[in-house]
Amino acid sequence: MDIAVIGTGAIGGLYGARLAHAGHRVHFLLNTEYEHVKENGLVVDSYLGDFSLTEPVIYNDITKMPRCSLVLYATKHTANETLFPLLEPVLEPGGNIIIMQNGLGAEQKLAALYPDSHVFGGMCFVCSYRESPGVIRNPNYERVSLAPFNAADKGRLGELANIFTGAGIDTETFTDLQLARWRKLMWNIPYNGLTVVMDCKTDFLVNDPAMCELVEHVMQEIVDAALACGSKIEAGFAEKMVSITKLMTPYEPSMKLDFRAGRAMEIDAIYGNPILFAAEHGFTMHYANAIRLVLAGLEEKHRR
Amino acid sequence: MDIAVIGTGAIGGLYGARLAHAGHRVHFLLNTEYEHVKENGLVVDSYLGDFSLTEPVIYNDITKMPRCSLVLYATKHTANETLFPLLEPVLEPGGNIIIMQNGLGAEQKLAALYPDSHVFGGMCFVCSYRESPGVIRNPNYERVSLAPFNAADKGRLGELANIFTGAGIDTETFTDLQLARWRKLMWNIPYNGLTVVMDCKTDFLVNDPAMCELVEHVMQEIVDAALACGSKIEAGFAEKMVSITKLMTPYEPSMKLDFRAGRAMEIDAIYGNPILFAAEHGFTMHYANAIRLVLAGLEEKHRR
Repeated sequence: MDIAVIGTGAIGGLYGARLAHAGHRVHFLLNTEYEHVKENGLVVDSYLGDFSLTEPVIYNDITKMPRCSLVLYATKHTANETLFPLLEPVLEPGGNIIIMQNGLGAEQKLAALYPDSHVFGGMCFVCSYRESPGVIRNPNYERVSLAPFNAADKGRLGELANIFTGAGIDTETFTDLQLARWRKLMWNIPYNGLTVVMDCKTDFLVNDPAMCELVEHVMQEIVDAALACGSKIEAGFAEKMVSITKLMTPYEPSMKLDFRAGRAMEIDAIYGNPILFAAEHGFTMHYANAIRLVLAGLEEKHRR
Repeated sequence: MDIAVIGTGAIGGLYGARLAHAGHRVHFLLNTEYEHVKENGLVVDSYLGDFSLTEPVIYNDITKMPRCSLVLYATKHTANETLFPLLEPVLEPGGNIIIMQNGLGAEQKLAALYPDSHVFGGMCFVCSYRESPGVIRNPNYERVSLAPFNAADKGRLGELANIFTGAGIDTETFTDLQLARWRKLMWNIPYNGLTVVMDCKTDFLVNDPAMCELVEHVMQEIVDAALACGSKIEAGFAEKMVSITKLMTPYEPSMKLDFRAGRAMEIDAIYGNPILFAAEHGFTMHYANAIRLVLAGLEEKHRR
């Protein structure tokens, strides 16, 4: 199967490499690391086992890529406005595209642009980061939730999940994309932002009493916001997110790495869009909004 | 008139020195700076004019102080539990004591301990800090709001205000202490905490768009919380606090200085007590609670 990976970073690189390692023809789009990967290949250093692709099929120009029946779209949310219109050459008519990003709202925009494609959300509950050019580290935890943007596409879910599980990826499926997105936000809204605000790793957020209390408030607010929007997050899920995070080696989420590197943080995707969506349903997300504004202020302060 | 100043810092030092400069017999209680002030006096460097007390009447032991008809109590709120029970020797029966602290809840505790004293709140809207031992800088702005804990004591307000205005202190009186306290919190809750959270001075909080939005939300929440507790803050007061802050030279409030020096911050007084008080009246202060918990986390992180 021909699979395109748009954005070969901690997420696209990890899952694309797993699929290539399992025998699929994976076409990786790279940008700044193209020359390095051409010379050195792609390396995955994972708790599930290390492996490398010595000669991955890579591109630095999307127009040179073949049309693929499956596209993993795994750039930063902040790149969507620029990249979405450029995807046409790589999309096979009637093919599948999985948005493997954080936040809320991307699938709707993509589906509106490409009505012939079948759009899915891929929510990655995973500890993964780009350790150095072409080297992806996945120290622990990995699970992908797949869900269709169009309810009519739920028949394709099993097929996609099989491709993933066939490559050794722990995969679960949801028929309700919005619910699956809110469930992922349950981790991202508290932990991504607060590692930046507090200049800490996840371990401080699950051990310090004040941080535990704050995370609990934030998570309860997400449960309430999701419910106001029609998505019922199951009881006990907040506690499960905390337990998983306690088991992780102290971790710096993508937002923290972005902040430190002076890159734009995914503030709109992870905070702004859910807050707006909840507000449209009559619910005010005070805690998420406080974090959003502190992050925006920190980004501006950093920029100066 | 014999006046005692308990806590000769940025507030007690400034107002005690003004009253001494105006001719009152002011008895200052000092702690770590006693020897330095004994040798060098007290210096006030103010936008209203500089002056110094070359031989202030100072003590390093409260039991050696005379009973005074007016006591200015101006320590940190965090010292109350230890200091309140020690005030007896300095209180003249039937005398007045003004609590010149931030936050909510101190007057009630003091009045319960000393039912023969007349307890007042002194809310200081002032830029003032201890520049070095015995030297207090007041670069701009100064106004004191006086209000009685017992409504029965409102007759004494004019008398106290006259003592203050007679020493050149801009003084206003409120008959409703709780309202006056909430009005002061309107500045302290957003600006004290956020200069710590953002590691900035007040100028960033009044210029950065995200910070302006956050401060606006926080202030609106205070207006709503106060109202739920029965105190109606006048329309336009939030905007007035922002305007005043814009006019200040970039300023680090006491909480920021405490944090940097590794001293306990007045988190309970400025955040915990108002949040609890509002909750008792059925109102949840989400924004204030978010700031409270981030501050508590930062304090713990700093301690480690």
